[in-house]
Amino acid sequence: MNKETNPGEMNGAESLVRTLIDGGVNVCFTNPGTSEMHFVAALDKVPGMRCILGLFEGVVTGAADGYYRMLGKPASTLLHLAPGLANGLANLHNAKKADSGIVNIVGEHATYHIKYDAPLTADIEGAAAPMSHWVKTSPTSKTVAADGALAIEAATETPGQIATLILPADTAWGPAEAVAVTTAPPAPPKVSDDAVKAAAEMLRTSERATLLMGGAALRQRGLELAGRIAAKTGCGILTEGANTRLERGAGRVQVLRIPYVVELAQEVMKKAGDLVLVGSREPVAFFAYPDKPSLLMDPDAKSTKLAGTDEDMEAALEALAMELDCLDVEPAGIAQPHRPPLPTGEMTKEAVAAVLGAMLPEGAIVIDESITTGREFFPTTAGAPPHDWINNRGGSIGYGLPVAVGAAVACPDRKVIALEGDGSAMYTLQSLWTMARENLDVTVLVFANSSYNILRGELTNVGVQNPGPRAVDMLSLDRPDLDWVQMSKGMGVEASRATTADELATAFEAGLHSEGPYLIEVAI
Amino acid sequence: MNKETNPGEMNGAESLVRTLIDGGVNVCFTNPGTSEMHFVAALDKVPGMRCILGLFEGVVTGAADGYYRMLGKPASTLLHLAPGLANGLANLHNAKKADSGIVNIVGEHATYHIKYDAPLTADIEGAAAPMSHWVKTSPTSKTVAADGALAIEAATETPGQIATLILPADTAWGPAEAVAVTTAPPAPPKVSDDAVKAAAEMLRTSERATLLMGGAALRQRGLELAGRIAAKTGCGILTEGANTRLERGAGRVQVLRIPYVVELAQEVMKKAGDLVLVGSREPVAFFAYPDKPSLLMDPDAKSTKLAGTDEDMEAALEALAMELDCLDVEPAGIAQPHRPPLPTGEMTKEAVAAVLGAMLPEGAIVIDESITTGREFFPTTAGAPPHDWINNRGGSIGYGLPVAVGAAVACPDRKVIALEGDGSAMYTLQSLWTMARENLDVTVLVFANSSYNILRGELTNVGVQNPGPRAVDMLSLDRPDLDWVQMSKGMGVEASRATTADELATAFEAGLHSEGPYLIEVAI
Repeated sequence: MNKETNPGEMNGAESLVRTLIDGGVNVCFTNPGTSEMHFVAALDKVPGMRCILGLFEGVVTGAADGYYRMLGKPASTLLHLAPGLANGLANLHNAKKADSGIVNIVGEHATYHIKYDAPLTADIEGAAAPMSHWVKTSPTSKTVAADGALAIEAATETPGQIATLILPADTAWGPAEAVAVTTAPPAPPKVSDDAVKAAAEMLRTSERATLLMGGAALRQRGLELAGRIAAKTGCGILTEGANTRLERGAGRVQVLRIPYVVELAQEVMKKAGDLVLVGSREPVAFFAYPDKPSLLMDPDAKSTKLAGTDEDMEAALEALAMELDCLDVEPAGIAQPHRPPLPTGEMTKEAVAAVLGAMLPEGAIVIDESITTGREFFPTTAGAPPHDWINNRGGSIGYGLPVAVGAAVACPDRKVIALEGDGSAMYTLQSLWTMARENLDVTVLVFANSSYNILRGELTNVGVQNPGPRAVDMLSLDRPDLDWVQMSKGMGVEASRATTADELATAFEAGLHSEGPYLIEVAI
Repeated sequence: MNKETNPGEMNGAESLVRTLIDGGVNVCFTNPGTSEMHFVAALDKVPGMRCILGLFEGVVTGAADGYYRMLGKPASTLLHLAPGLANGLANLHNAKKADSGIVNIVGEHATYHIKYDAPLTADIEGAAAPMSHWVKTSPTSKTVAADGALAIEAATETPGQIATLILPADTAWGPAEAVAVTTAPPAPPKVSDDAVKAAAEMLRTSERATLLMGGAALRQRGLELAGRIAAKTGCGILTEGANTRLERGAGRVQVLRIPYVVELAQEVMKKAGDLVLVGSREPVAFFAYPDKPSLLMDPDAKSTKLAGTDEDMEAALEALAMELDCLDVEPAGIAQPHRPPLPTGEMTKEAVAAVLGAMLPEGAIVIDESITTGREFFPTTAGAPPHDWINNRGGSIGYGLPVAVGAAVACPDRKVIALEGDGSAMYTLQSLWTMARENLDVTVLVFANSSYNILRGELTNVGVQNPGPRAVDMLSLDRPDLDWVQMSKGMGVEASRATTADELATAFEAGLHSEGPYLIEVAI
């Protein structure tokens, strides 16, 4: 990080905006307040920053996550003091678990004002720490550009990091010294020969072995290499339960995810045997349950780490394929083009899955927060034209609609499809307004089962027998039913309700042909 | 905190629920998840806990704030791990600044599961600390009841505290030892004679002096005593810019608030002169602005503290009145009954203020988050029948609708009136669904100016001249306009739109006659 010469009468906010743009950060998702007004004002002085307003901070941080997942480079946020940050923390948590890089900018009171404990005063660094990799409060208007460059550098490491830069108001309105130059982070290191040899040894000698793939290894090239290795060694290929972004569909190497339900996961892991870890960890249960294990691996199985998410995973897979002499072998498990027939009649989970499989367009970006409704979606779409599939890595619901916003901003020429449980969609429904304002090409399916349906199963899973009516009531979203068509139209997004498979196909067609956002309430 | 004998086959969750109920905490606002299922299940085993679901955690924590403000005793919350807590933090911040006591219960992974870093794992204690007074993770199912009692004791101190109790899942499902007995906190201490004498001395000798009242001093009895003191000494009576709950209206001693705008506040403080602080602090500006002071007091004025919010403020005012020999003096500044005439014609801020003044019902609880629209509301309602007026003490917008939920639960026989800027209402609009589900008697006015209007002024206040179109765009909520009638109906709350003063009066009448929630979009 070096400095350019001072371009003159520039305040801290302008120096930061220029530093961000020069450093390749040219999108800012924001919900600003008084302490951020100079940053907002600087947007008109400096061309090159696309600024997108969210009416709630969870939209803002989730959008930055989706943006990174598609482009592999950070957007910035602009949040208002500790409470504005707090509103964005749950989706920062999800982004952190997804290794998404974000330059997370939080306004603060002027340095000299903090001690007076005005209403909005709170410990921003403390609030940011649990959901950030890097936190810094810039002390003066002359340091804010350099600190901005440090934040970009932190966010763009491999894997991405949440870099929270706290910006006291006087660092924005005081005089700047210079625009700062961001140093590109070093390329991720190559894995050691020993790691490659150990993986090869396991694949050659284990009775059963599986490549457990995660992170950026789940792109077409990484999967293709895995497919060659599988063809040569007979190993399996799996991914963790939730992926940051999986390139899949016809012509690509097909992989399955470890199921959410512990018993199903144990079955899968038993078959998987020994594990070669590529951007993944030994799998653990999403939750603990009485008398069920936290670790999902077959207790008799071993694991070896080929590459972590901080290493060059593609090069590691190449090295492994070379070691196994299979770089030119035809990959195993390539998905053949296949579309299920369009269903008719009753709306069921299977019918929804079939509609998706039959109609998913090429290049679609699927944001999957369908929870219980969506467990059939993965197989029926396996042979659809090539597309991306995005999961929630952090488990905090309300990630889907914001991530869809960010993905649509990142890839304006691709169709984004958000698959949403109704309970999840309610958390950050303000996202719909941003979709309307920016005319983002997102088709949203809300599965209106009027229930936190997953929790009904979880009551049993944690050992509660015959839950009473008051418990069940806490998991029910009826009384009153949510009308998603009205809520969506109220935020400017065209919407319709589908009660049969046929109606869903018609509505999905309308969504796919729309060039802006469209919401379908799926009565299921 | 002592323990009763063990009532037998009880798990930790049940022991905690019983401890809460025995300790007087009989309302739980919740948005639970898997790790909280045993707590939810215990609700059916133990009678006496009213459990109210919010579809977003900001609703939950804000409702607990509103409940405390009306009843002066804590409700509990039940939140799902660090991200669920995070979603509730902004309204916990507001509650903390309002000295509201809350037993804030956060589920955690089973103790032995935390080390595996499952998706939802994060530092809950770290996330809770900035917005809590008291944080504890209960280590076992045998300690959770006792820790629950400690949390109740912390929350019920004077003033109230945010007591965050973290509940690992195995502390809920493991065997309990006993229900715990909560010890009532000691009564708040009386102030010293010296404090009373110093206040009396200031009121006797200062050229200008003012009682600056805050917290629980703003109830009828405290204000009446202040009025007697004012009648005797000629001092003024003021409150801070935002109050936890102010009892006002015809027959009560009238007080004004310190204005938000720095220059106006300085004028008021100049007239106020020396300050006797009763549950308040020397006033500070909400934000810092270039070349404006942080401290609003007249630089030549002094202050003396009669009583803090942790002391018996009513007794302090009595002691002061006795010292000044005015306990039987007729209070100064009693508001006379007065209703402005119902306005007709164009919808203006003044017309809205007049409708409120003309129609506000006796016993109303007004939750004021009207931001720029509402600056005329206070004077026109000063002579309305007795009512309560609640402000945001923490400054994080999105407090109003949740606090209205909690106030309505606390006081089912009173009409709650929520005055909401449209930008603020969007943060926690999920509150409407809870109002519908619980059939809460809340009339919501949303002032649809399609703008973060306050920020347009703040751009100028922080010294930005002629903001450009991109800056203004970040403060505008049009493109698309929000349709509050549709959003409200989509969540089950009857709604209408008022575009003239006459229509507003008609709609407000409908709201007042409704026995459940009703929303009015005020086109302004």
